[in-house]
Amino acid sequence: MIVSAYAAPSATEPLAPTAVERRDPGPHDVQIHIEYAGICHSDIHTARSEWGPARYPVVPGHEIAGTVTAVGPDVTKYQVGDRVGVGCFVDSCRECDACKAGEEQYCTKGMIGTYNSVGRDGEPTQGGYSTHIVVDENYVCRIPDGVDLAHAAPLLCAGITLYSPLKHWNAGPGKKVAIVGLGGLGHMGVKIAHALGAEVTVLSQSLKKMEDGLRLGADHYYATSDPDTFKALRGKFDLIINTVSANLDMSRYFGMLALDGTLVEVGLPEHPVPVRVFDLTRNRRSFAGSNIGGIAQTQEMLDFCAEHGLGAEIEVISADRINEAYERVIASDVRYRFVIDTSTLPAVAQ
Amino acid sequence: MIVSAYAAPSATEPLAPTAVERRDPGPHDVQIHIEYAGICHSDIHTARSEWGPARYPVVPGHEIAGTVTAVGPDVTKYQVGDRVGVGCFVDSCRECDACKAGEEQYCTKGMIGTYNSVGRDGEPTQGGYSTHIVVDENYVCRIPDGVDLAHAAPLLCAGITLYSPLKHWNAGPGKKVAIVGLGGLGHMGVKIAHALGAEVTVLSQSLKKMEDGLRLGADHYYATSDPDTFKALRGKFDLIINTVSANLDMSRYFGMLALDGTLVEVGLPEHPVPVRVFDLTRNRRSFAGSNIGGIAQTQEMLDFCAEHGLGAEIEVISADRINEAYERVIASDVRYRFVIDTSTLPAVAQ
Repeated sequence: MIVSAYAAPSATEPLAPTAVERRDPGPHDVQIHIEYAGICHSDIHTARSEWGPARYPVVPGHEIAGTVTAVGPDVTKYQVGDRVGVGCFVDSCRECDACKAGEEQYCTKGMIGTYNSVGRDGEPTQGGYSTHIVVDENYVCRIPDGVDLAHAAPLLCAGITLYSPLKHWNAGPGKKVAIVGLGGLGHMGVKIAHALGAEVTVLSQSLKKMEDGLRLGADHYYATSDPDTFKALRGKFDLIINTVSANLDMSRYFGMLALDGTLVEVGLPEHPVPVRVFDLTRNRRSFAGSNIGGIAQTQEMLDFCAEHGLGAEIEVISADRINEAYERVIASDVRYRFVIDTSTLPAVAQ
Repeated sequence: MIVSAYAAPSATEPLAPTAVERRDPGPHDVQIHIEYAGICHSDIHTARSEWGPARYPVVPGHEIAGTVTAVGPDVTKYQVGDRVGVGCFVDSCRECDACKAGEEQYCTKGMIGTYNSVGRDGEPTQGGYSTHIVVDENYVCRIPDGVDLAHAAPLLCAGITLYSPLKHWNAGPGKKVAIVGLGGLGHMGVKIAHALGAEVTVLSQSLKKMEDGLRLGADHYYATSDPDTFKALRGKFDLIINTVSANLDMSRYFGMLALDGTLVEVGLPEHPVPVRVFDLTRNRRSFAGSNIGGIAQTQEMLDFCAEHGLGAEIEVISADRINEAYERVIASDVRYRFVIDTSTLPAVAQ
């Protein structure tokens, strides 16, 4: 099946319309009509080979929401018409301890990314800026009726990236949680942490988005450009989740952790982070990293979001605005996630 | 009461005999006849003002073992003749969350160190290289009969420094634990982790102390000077405790952590540690710090050591060899802890 898509032809050219081939559904495969695909900053890093050389042409997109249009003969979990989502990976070894534990994102052999990877069939994987995708049913999640597809798409990466560490480090009633950065990731962190019952503080560079932050569920909002913030919040938080990829002066952030507090990185700063060990031995603090979540937890997150009426705050765009959207993502000029309406992709000759 | 002691007169002079005054026991105080005092590397750092300017003259020593010689009228926990120990601190605010939680070492107002601090009475505290000390009963631990005093002394710092993170991060049956460095701290880590039931690996610069390591309870022993070590042990450990204060290439050590593994620093490297965040997001790893332990846990550790017949491996020295011992500690030429026999301190005119 030849389907319409938008791809980066090289690291330096803008994305452009193209056509990609999707395999016929195998016994355990689900064929999905993609209706919406979120734009994640990772898409840009990959399209531009900023995280190492990409396989071109590459179709980005790992925040995929749509409906099932066909299933393989042995598929048991889904049927035609089901509302489903696909996130950052479409396969993994299924045999290592991590896979067996349902933490496929930490597969010791490396998960197979939704794009810019090589699938079990030896073909490059191509992502969600496209009208269709074919994925093994074990790597597909159900999108509950309570969330519409456009708002659900970003949950598959931004949502799970925040939900997973919030759950792992026990965000909930009585816990003080800070979210550093109110962007695509951070705004989902605020919503989810609030829904989990935690006391939520946003730490943003300025107070520009304060009204939004409080509306989304934050209890407090501080500007990190104000040095008093770090004094006022000294020793306060049980958990800080840093969604900012730029290198920050981490010592100031560690200082805001309470006894046994943890600061979790969910972005990837370009440069190594200098850590003063005294900042950790003081208050027995931890500096940790977290990478998306497993399939079971992604499903749990979607169910949780439906139950609590949570979706991403989005700006729906047509495919011909992808390159413009990339520039705006880089400039942090989006509240809070671009989602591509794939019905605007050009038709391809079948 | 004027008592004999050894003190550093300044940052650059050798330690020398001196006399210090100990207060009369207050209502809750215990007067202790110190029989043995361990030499900790921290003593040297402080005596030489390597951790900031010290208050001179300073009597180091926070690994103290002895017997009770007098008690204040309101003391309920101890009586004359009891075998007791004192560790790194002799008081704290008793009101903050950390103190209330029995984690006095993380007192938000700062614990009062056994030496080089200022006590509640406004006087400088002086440590264990001395024949007597007077300490509030709430900051004294009981040394069970199963451990002799000389071998018990180093447990008050080296022992608890390792016991606390091993317990906090759940070292025990089924857990793979690595101890980096087989010195005063590390050798206690091996003994305690083994007694807790963990599978213990020593990561030492060379294989020189391998025989000792295995005898002390290690299941495996690797040289970190061999690059193959890091490949062979990739993703293996649930917990790595680093006792080495020198700056290491941490990326290689993070690589040895399994899913959800934690690397805990119990030393204080001089320079900030550069951390590649990818090393943490991979396998959801944590980089943590731990600082000694609270009084309740120190007592628990002493009881645990008695139950398992554990004490430090020591070389008992007379007081006139303290300066020589300092040089040997710096050269890592001790197996594994110097302990001063305080009966060798010169008599003072009362």
